[in-house]
Amino acid sequence: MALIVQKYGGTSVGTVERIKAVASKVAAARERGDGMVVVVSAMSGETNRLVSLAKDICKRPDPRELDVLLSTGEQVTIALLSMALQEIGCPARSYTGAQVHILTDSAHSKARIRDIDDARVRADLDAGRVVVIAGFQGVDESGNITTLGRGGSDTTAVAMAAALKADECQIFTDVDGVYTTDPRVEPKARKLDRITFEEMLEMASLGSKVLQIRSVEFAGKYNVPLRVLSSFEEGEGTLITFEDECMEEAKISGIAFSRDEAKLTIRGVPDQPGVAYSILGPISGANIEVDMIVQNIAEDNTTDFTFTVSRNDFPKALEILKETAQVLGAREAEGDDAIVKISLVGVGMRSHAGIASKMFETLAKEGINIRMISTSEIKISVVVDEKYLELGVRSLHDAFDLAAESSE
Amino acid sequence: MALIVQKYGGTSVGTVERIKAVASKVAAARERGDGMVVVVSAMSGETNRLVSLAKDICKRPDPRELDVLLSTGEQVTIALLSMALQEIGCPARSYTGAQVHILTDSAHSKARIRDIDDARVRADLDAGRVVVIAGFQGVDESGNITTLGRGGSDTTAVAMAAALKADECQIFTDVDGVYTTDPRVEPKARKLDRITFEEMLEMASLGSKVLQIRSVEFAGKYNVPLRVLSSFEEGEGTLITFEDECMEEAKISGIAFSRDEAKLTIRGVPDQPGVAYSILGPISGANIEVDMIVQNIAEDNTTDFTFTVSRNDFPKALEILKETAQVLGAREAEGDDAIVKISLVGVGMRSHAGIASKMFETLAKEGINIRMISTSEIKISVVVDEKYLELGVRSLHDAFDLAAESSE
Repeated sequence: MALIVQKYGGTSVGTVERIKAVASKVAAARERGDGMVVVVSAMSGETNRLVSLAKDICKRPDPRELDVLLSTGEQVTIALLSMALQEIGCPARSYTGAQVHILTDSAHSKARIRDIDDARVRADLDAGRVVVIAGFQGVDESGNITTLGRGGSDTTAVAMAAALKADECQIFTDVDGVYTTDPRVEPKARKLDRITFEEMLEMASLGSKVLQIRSVEFAGKYNVPLRVLSSFEEGEGTLITFEDECMEEAKISGIAFSRDEAKLTIRGVPDQPGVAYSILGPISGANIEVDMIVQNIAEDNTTDFTFTVSRNDFPKALEILKETAQVLGAREAEGDDAIVKISLVGVGMRSHAGIASKMFETLAKEGINIRMISTSEIKISVVVDEKYLELGVRSLHDAFDLAAESSE
Repeated sequence: MALIVQKYGGTSVGTVERIKAVASKVAAARERGDGMVVVVSAMSGETNRLVSLAKDICKRPDPRELDVLLSTGEQVTIALLSMALQEIGCPARSYTGAQVHILTDSAHSKARIRDIDDARVRADLDAGRVVVIAGFQGVDESGNITTLGRGGSDTTAVAMAAALKADECQIFTDVDGVYTTDPRVEPKARKLDRITFEEMLEMASLGSKVLQIRSVEFAGKYNVPLRVLSSFEEGEGTLITFEDECMEEAKISGIAFSRDEAKLTIRGVPDQPGVAYSILGPISGANIEVDMIVQNIAEDNTTDFTFTVSRNDFPKALEILKETAQVLGAREAEGDDAIVKISLVGVGMRSHAGIASKMFETLAKEGINIRMISTSEIKISVVVDEKYLELGVRSLHDAFDLAAESSE
């Protein structure tokens, strides 16, 4: 008997009919002999309805009270799903985050899980019951209701799977798995059967919104095999697993990209120790996160310094950078928010040389000018003009033969 | 500084605007220096919405899961009211039934409160915060969410007031107090400033739907002064209190009546020990509650036996009684559901003779035939034909001078 934790998001439980469909799926898995724990989100639309009630009361609702309010969304779903399971003869019992002791810190609306007491869940599993747990929520040491923030139901599922040492944590979403790249940009994109945690983290952080980054980190840390599947279609989905179990031996798993990018440059900064801090200090002081950073020393012993930020932080960041330029006696500060980031991701890079040069060659052949480069152990990212996004992604997808069942 | 527990029902918190109005009322009371605990129901309509979701899943929802579902209704209200209080500068904190440890038995949908741990509430009160508590709900010893049944928010308020030894428990409703009788029947009906618990119990059980009977019983048992007030109008409402505090010294406090009555009679039953049980056993076996019972012995040593039931139990009860008549060899079984019950209620009856005869005289003068009579220490009830309801109530209201500020 395997122990499976499944998670269904808001769309998957968005109507009474869909809740019934989820119940059938869960009951079928239990019939096959698996122990089943199911984590659910609020019905789609419910969280927004509750938020708008709060906004009608006050502009900035108290975070503690907002968590009390929002946590009712999942509580409704667990009750309905348990009823639906019982209705088809499948014993089931629901638990709120507080009831199953998902202990978190007290950071309302973005709490982190500290501990889970799995005794109650195990007792129900031993009694043959499906355990239905409210995602997204927990309770702090003083008994206050907390929420984990948007997408936190994934984290709940992974944390439950880790606490129970489950055989697999299955995240049901509206996509049927992780793809080599976004199929809307490259129709030849191929669904991956497996991907490593590290690759998934890079893909997720670059805008593949299949899974919450925190839940992937969590799963990796606690060795929980994670699977992404579709709620609406049959299929095996994509298994996110550990490197040494990965049989495909691909150099490159996928191509991620992000449109949410803007680039800022300050030129002719007199070079001296601490110049990077002088430039970036005021930026992070304004709570703006910086992603890629490139610094060149020019011949006249001045520095050109370029970095990227999220596109909606761009106006503010440029304003700050212009002030900094005056303070530092720099030549100029300028920016560009018509850029995108394209990244090759794959653990195979570690052992295979020549990936970077092949990437640059491919882009050069298409006449795509690379504006910035940044590399990590399993990722190469380039910044290019926004207009080259589709061309860049497709040509790289071709060059690295990602559409083939087993890539080179 | 007085400690006040206030309870606002579903209509009083039915919209965001009304929640804001409640917040103003509560904040004003706190400004006057009172310690404030507020118990709220689900926004009107919300419980029905949740029930209909459950009914879409299955015909007979599991009681445990139904309680998980329904308890979200009050949880939404406590969060919104706390936000509204904070918005106008009044510190407030919300608690679910489980959070404030309203310990109940495990009878889902009709649980009874066993104990309340008031430590958390006291700490908040000491810190100057308004404490907002979800009515209608609790938690059993195993941590399962329970509900107290419809109207249970009144009980929550009274139980909190008892646990905290509050100075007063104020129930805000859509009426402005308890009246000598229903003003829709007798426009001269007068609002009572005070009424005793015993009288209130009789009034409530006879169809004055101002308060839940259980909450009145509870308040009486734990010596909690209870006040009924309007959410929408200013006024002192009606204080429900203990007999010896009652200054009015009225013989009669009010006239209650009930249209939900039907009368059944079995005639010519051979009299023998156990005949009452033979007749009523099958009735209660069908889960039908019997109210008034009258038995006469005729000269031929047979019995005529009459009793009343709720009007919607009438057809079933008559069917059963006809079967019983055959079994017992009775002469006939018949029934009448065009009857009503009118009751005089007042603790003054105990010490004042002649109330009953004055009542019968008054009705006789109006030509109203009395079909049944039943008395208790503080109540005299008569059954009359339905068509005499208004005439009966008004003539008694006049005869006992109830419209006067201080009745005889």
